[in-house]
Amino acid sequence: VKNIQAPSREDQLLDWLQGQLSGAGQQLLGDDAAVLRLEGEWAISLDSQIEGVHFPADLAPSIVARRLLAVSLSDLAAMGALPRYAFLALNSPSSFDHKEFFRAFLEACGGYQLVLGGGDLATSASLCTTLTVVGARRGRHRWLLRGGARVGDRLWVGGTLGESAAGRLLIAAGARWDGESRPELPARFSRSPEASSAAARAVIRHLAPRPQLQLGRWLAQQPSGGVLDISDGLSLDLSRLCRESGVGAQVERRRLPLPRGFRSLCDELGRQPTQLALSGGEDYVLLFSLPVDQEPPPELGCFAIGATCAARELSLRSGNRIEPLLARGWDHLAARGGAGPGNPEA
Amino acid sequence: VKNIQAPSREDQLLDWLQGQLSGAGQQLLGDDAAVLRLEGEWAISLDSQIEGVHFPADLAPSIVARRLLAVSLSDLAAMGALPRYAFLALNSPSSFDHKEFFRAFLEACGGYQLVLGGGDLATSASLCTTLTVVGARRGRHRWLLRGGARVGDRLWVGGTLGESAAGRLLIAAGARWDGESRPELPARFSRSPEASSAAARAVIRHLAPRPQLQLGRWLAQQPSGGVLDISDGLSLDLSRLCRESGVGAQVERRRLPLPRGFRSLCDELGRQPTQLALSGGEDYVLLFSLPVDQEPPPELGCFAIGATCAARELSLRSGNRIEPLLARGWDHLAARGGAGPGNPEA
Repeated sequence: VKNIQAPSREDQLLDWLQGQLSGAGQQLLGDDAAVLRLEGEWAISLDSQIEGVHFPADLAPSIVARRLLAVSLSDLAAMGALPRYAFLALNSPSSFDHKEFFRAFLEACGGYQLVLGGGDLATSASLCTTLTVVGARRGRHRWLLRGGARVGDRLWVGGTLGESAAGRLLIAAGARWDGESRPELPARFSRSPEASSAAARAVIRHLAPRPQLQLGRWLAQQPSGGVLDISDGLSLDLSRLCRESGVGAQVERRRLPLPRGFRSLCDELGRQPTQLALSGGEDYVLLFSLPVDQEPPPELGCFAIGATCAARELSLRSGNRIEPLLARGWDHLAARGGAGPGNPEA
Repeated sequence: VKNIQAPSREDQLLDWLQGQLSGAGQQLLGDDAAVLRLEGEWAISLDSQIEGVHFPADLAPSIVARRLLAVSLSDLAAMGALPRYAFLALNSPSSFDHKEFFRAFLEACGGYQLVLGGGDLATSASLCTTLTVVGARRGRHRWLLRGGARVGDRLWVGGTLGESAAGRLLIAAGARWDGESRPELPARFSRSPEASSAAARAVIRHLAPRPQLQLGRWLAQQPSGGVLDISDGLSLDLSRLCRESGVGAQVERRRLPLPRGFRSLCDELGRQPTQLALSGGEDYVLLFSLPVDQEPPPELGCFAIGATCAARELSLRSGNRIEPLLARGWDHLAARGGAGPGNPEA
């Protein structure tokens, strides 16, 4: 029992948080730093999620918490790492509901077997969160690297493309989701059942991405291949895979995996489905290469989209027509508000 | 040579950054996560520094960079850890001078023998930075913990108190510093040489704190004692040391170490020197306890300020008068703008 009262709102919240934690986490919080016993090789990554940049200003704290975790763990999935520890910087307006955030955050951590190791709380004008995650390597698994693609590999993605970007456009147009019921679509959105079902799924896909940890673990058991996660758009992230591997790539347009009802949805949004799939970003599926004699198990839901090649350039094949594939997507340093030439909204 | 052109402003900056790095850092950047070989116990901590909260909006990127590092390393100093790796989240307006930031950041990292292991860049309306630092333990050194104080220990601080808070008040009143020349003081500030020298030092102390890594290393070689760094104010952080250790403490007012010229400066600012020393915050000196038969070497510049006691309460002794010491300081969750009851500006 601590006889001296928690002296500040911060200490009171930390006391409450200690009560929510079990075992390992409880031991780690409360000093100037967490002390971890770590043997061998570890993967460390961090991601920021900022109100008004990565998510709308009125998003429920529980959704912000789960999304932050998912986006950060997508990086560990892309390394083939097992989630172990998380360190959270949470900068929020003083009206922020910390308890809603932490309840959702800790519940999601439990599902990923991730331990909250420490954090930093501050008050700021708008919500700005950063999560550092530490992942382990299992037994004989390899680390998955961007530079592992070889000429002649087949290219794969871990799921459909463009849906998250469509969700972002819908949210910018007024769609909202409370994390439980069916998303509310923008008032002017058509009531075609196919497009509105696709729209509801897109909003959820954007706000509640799922890190492909299982696929990452499978890939970590394969002897070769390059891997990264698609956060900034297929074409942009593919150009990174190719640069690091010293190869080029050709993508087949007809093989781009589009979600169900996506064409109707894109009609409504006035967007080209292929463009969203190629450069919409925030898909959070893995993009990877494998030798042609290897295929991921069907239950992992992957799609072959093309192949790597010796010529160090990116191309898009549509039937017999081959055109350069421009590396476009989400440029984190381009100016916001649609003005950035690197961003697909521009 | 990467034949495929850097596809975005972000990739171009990362290419430039790779060129600035040597050895270890170069290896770590560029994948979805850094892979580190870590054996044994490690200390991990993180801190955010936010424009308008922790520093003024027009601060030079080089000063922001060095301050972020210093504040984060102060936590490692308080653990007795040796700095090893840093992971940076840098969220900034698109006009931000990343290269100025990184030049200063990497130069300072070199001085601390710290390797930049990874990071995340994003565009945001205002500057929001988070640094995660990883520290090692040397040979037989112990980790320094808040819970290590024992009844009857002497209490120490690693330097003068209140100066950083005075610097913050001066900056709020218009003082500015470019990182090199003498700070500019607010226009209405008196020209008494003593007060204005003290003011210039206070502005620098606030903007360029120095983590007490050497003191942390010395403490880590002593068999006992509780330690933390004073970030939120002596009285608030002392209450944390006492809560974790299950002790109380008495501070002697006349022993509070005030900087040179501090009383003149406080007169100008209309503040009580003792109040700033007790609860101003951001001192970034270590607060620690040691058995009475141990003293830090004089060259470390420490001051004995009181003692721990069995009664679990904090008190302040002024001559023969003993009064309760209220744990007041910087509450990270109190409302900003002077409205927070927990903050000394209120």
